[in-house]
Amino acid sequence: MRLILLLVVLGLSAPLSADYFSDEDLAIARELRERALVRDGGFDVVEDLTTRVGPRLAGTEADARAVAWAVELLNGLGFDRVWKEPVTFPTWSRNFERVRVTSPVEQRMEALAIGYSPATPEGGIEAEVVMFDDLDALLNAEPEDVAGRIVFIRNRMERSRDGSGYGPAVQARSRGAIVAAEKGAVGVIIRSIGTSTNRFAHTGGMRFDLGQRRLPAAAISNPDADQLERLIALGEPVRLHMEIDAQKTEAYTSHNVIAEITGATSPEKIVALGAHLDSWDVGTGALDDGAGIAIITEAGRLILDLDRRPDRSIHLIFFAAEEVGLWGGRAWAEAHHQNFENLQLGAESDFGAGQIYEIGARVLDEAWPVIEAIQRELAPLGIDLGRRQASGGPDFLPSLPHGLAVVDLRQDGTTYFDYHHTENDTLDKIDPVDLAQNAAAYAVLAWLAAQSPVDFGSGPALLEQERSRAQ
Amino acid sequence: MRLILLLVVLGLSAPLSADYFSDEDLAIARELRERALVRDGGFDVVEDLTTRVGPRLAGTEADARAVAWAVELLNGLGFDRVWKEPVTFPTWSRNFERVRVTSPVEQRMEALAIGYSPATPEGGIEAEVVMFDDLDALLNAEPEDVAGRIVFIRNRMERSRDGSGYGPAVQARSRGAIVAAEKGAVGVIIRSIGTSTNRFAHTGGMRFDLGQRRLPAAAISNPDADQLERLIALGEPVRLHMEIDAQKTEAYTSHNVIAEITGATSPEKIVALGAHLDSWDVGTGALDDGAGIAIITEAGRLILDLDRRPDRSIHLIFFAAEEVGLWGGRAWAEAHHQNFENLQLGAESDFGAGQIYEIGARVLDEAWPVIEAIQRELAPLGIDLGRRQASGGPDFLPSLPHGLAVVDLRQDGTTYFDYHHTENDTLDKIDPVDLAQNAAAYAVLAWLAAQSPVDFGSGPALLEQERSRAQ
Repeated sequence: MRLILLLVVLGLSAPLSADYFSDEDLAIARELRERALVRDGGFDVVEDLTTRVGPRLAGTEADARAVAWAVELLNGLGFDRVWKEPVTFPTWSRNFERVRVTSPVEQRMEALAIGYSPATPEGGIEAEVVMFDDLDALLNAEPEDVAGRIVFIRNRMERSRDGSGYGPAVQARSRGAIVAAEKGAVGVIIRSIGTSTNRFAHTGGMRFDLGQRRLPAAAISNPDADQLERLIALGEPVRLHMEIDAQKTEAYTSHNVIAEITGATSPEKIVALGAHLDSWDVGTGALDDGAGIAIITEAGRLILDLDRRPDRSIHLIFFAAEEVGLWGGRAWAEAHHQNFENLQLGAESDFGAGQIYEIGARVLDEAWPVIEAIQRELAPLGIDLGRRQASGGPDFLPSLPHGLAVVDLRQDGTTYFDYHHTENDTLDKIDPVDLAQNAAAYAVLAWLAAQSPVDFGSGPALLEQERSRAQ
Repeated sequence: MRLILLLVVLGLSAPLSADYFSDEDLAIARELRERALVRDGGFDVVEDLTTRVGPRLAGTEADARAVAWAVELLNGLGFDRVWKEPVTFPTWSRNFERVRVTSPVEQRMEALAIGYSPATPEGGIEAEVVMFDDLDALLNAEPEDVAGRIVFIRNRMERSRDGSGYGPAVQARSRGAIVAAEKGAVGVIIRSIGTSTNRFAHTGGMRFDLGQRRLPAAAISNPDADQLERLIALGEPVRLHMEIDAQKTEAYTSHNVIAEITGATSPEKIVALGAHLDSWDVGTGALDDGAGIAIITEAGRLILDLDRRPDRSIHLIFFAAEEVGLWGGRAWAEAHHQNFENLQLGAESDFGAGQIYEIGARVLDEAWPVIEAIQRELAPLGIDLGRRQASGGPDFLPSLPHGLAVVDLRQDGTTYFDYHHTENDTLDKIDPVDLAQNAAAYAVLAWLAAQSPVDFGSGPALLEQERSRAQ
């Protein structure tokens, strides 16, 4: 009896969404949620993108086709404004890569060059393999054990819901070709940064400073990495031949494509939903990041279908050239950070098509209860309240130093890294039911963020809060 | 009470294994079964084969390495006799294949040339695509709708435990390139004959008579076939470019490798366990048919480890050149059919590494109760009694017209056609627990067949029974 009384009292004293939003705004949020769930989450959008455009590596002719596709799509959907903003970056594209064991037996390995890998000399290179457990082991290696050899880094990515296995494992890809160059190696092979045992190599970028020497580098599929380990375990020297043909250009200009639902009362204030339009060249970029494009487009479409406009403006940003170095995100931050006081928040969908299980946010302390109120409207979608921190997604990373308030709608990534950056990232891997749950969450988030009684504090206010906390 | 009495009476009157086999033979069968289950089914054998030899397309240098590996393995295991028998066949090997959509958009398709596909002219061919539901639809097509075009046959293989979806679907691969040639097409593309949505093309052979004109033909992966259908559904003409480079030779001689456990009392009588040593060139042939090689080798090893020899001889046959036309099976039938009266039975393991769920047999009627008795010793492995018919496996097919008695130990093939004839057929796809169940079944079968009180009727006796039944 006392317990029941306690629960009633707690229940009455707990904050309600109605403390922050009007009944009408809440009714609309619920309507958006319900309507999204009986639709397909924008599957038609990702189907059209992956079919008509297909793979769309930044800086290729397919990049230009994707941008044209996006402008036509967004104009056709009746957004209030659609425009392009330039993004300039160095390009890289692959012609081919071939990796094979030449000793003790001749065997082909399934491989993909890592983005920005230099080409090998024509005819390729051949050398004995030296294996390392991870990048740290390579960092600690004596140069005489590495010089003249092909380095093989064998670390495995662990599967997890939040994708936390990616960060530690990806060091091999990000830095392997630079560290191995410093120690005199002639090439680098890594075990793919991915969780599947299907025989696909996972490509991806490397991280380097201009002018830094890099080696030709490729990822081999996980079954091939197992095979290479078994061959090394036989005890005889193992030799590899690798040939990579790829080219760079100094500068290509693509575009971020932005569509606006103009706010009714504070049109200058902006809720920014993002996804990236480019993809790697090998799959059709369905999960990465056609799904994100579909999700935010569907969220925008649902809000456009309302018989009123939100108070603040909502922007959909289709970022350019994410995969090859967050170039679209960098350009956007550069172009808009002076105006971040008007940016309500940023949230990018770029983690496949798994269901969202949690919301986290980087906002002013006084705005956190509004995030909690939004979470209560997301709870029927199975979305819990998460940490009081967020990155906003890769394309908002360059905006974080400028104090952008961001929200993470964290997706279940258990199988995402089975497909990520492979030929196997194709439309059939997307479940429209999961996609609809995502679109519902983004629609509710965008709507309520646009109607919030307070701003989330982007710009100097948020930076000041973080500075004072750090002291 | 009456029911219980009835069951007791039925129980007493039901045949017992002891009616056909001595207590000692049954005790040994049970010992073999138990010992097999605590081991790994010969996983070490398939690991060594796929690592040291790797892919081993018939007629390549890897074929010769595989034969040498087999002779060394079988001699090392202490079989009483190991020898090679020549198998001569025309060879085919791929250099590369490239298939891409050129209109309405440029997109690469994941493809593998079909075995014995001719090369295209250098630079490839390009033509508009015409799509057919299946081979029958192509057979019924008017030549003017096909002439000058690339035929696309879109039939899908259905998934099933017994692999029964393969037969209907594979017609497109076996005959498409011949039928399309007759109607004036310039090339053939098929949807892969496989059940997975992973982006692997499934290769395989085609069936043709010498001198028959064939077109360049390739299989595209199932996600690419979906994509091609979506592109066709856009309503504009779809054009494909295909280039295949491959070569044939007139005749290469490889070998069936045979190992014998010599029978103690009737050494001239033979129980023949088979598997094929060759594989397609793209994977490492772990499931197809490294698993079969492991299973029968492990069965032989278990029997060799006994402190006595079986009454009849047991042969392990590692067949050559199965994938490219059952050449090893043809050569064996040709070399041995005069002696089939001494062949107790044949049984080949060539359906991956899934567990066995059923035994079927083609034997003389009077020997069927012995098959039932053997099944009772397999029942603890989860193996039921199946149909009174069997094929014995692909390499015994050429022996069937000569009256070979055969047994099928039918494996669960639910996932087999996800990997079959793809790059993805690698060691990690094999579960040693399942492999051990297979080895247990083959060991029990081989032992009891060698100890059977009756012969199974291979040769004229079995042919005579079938002739009289057909009349």
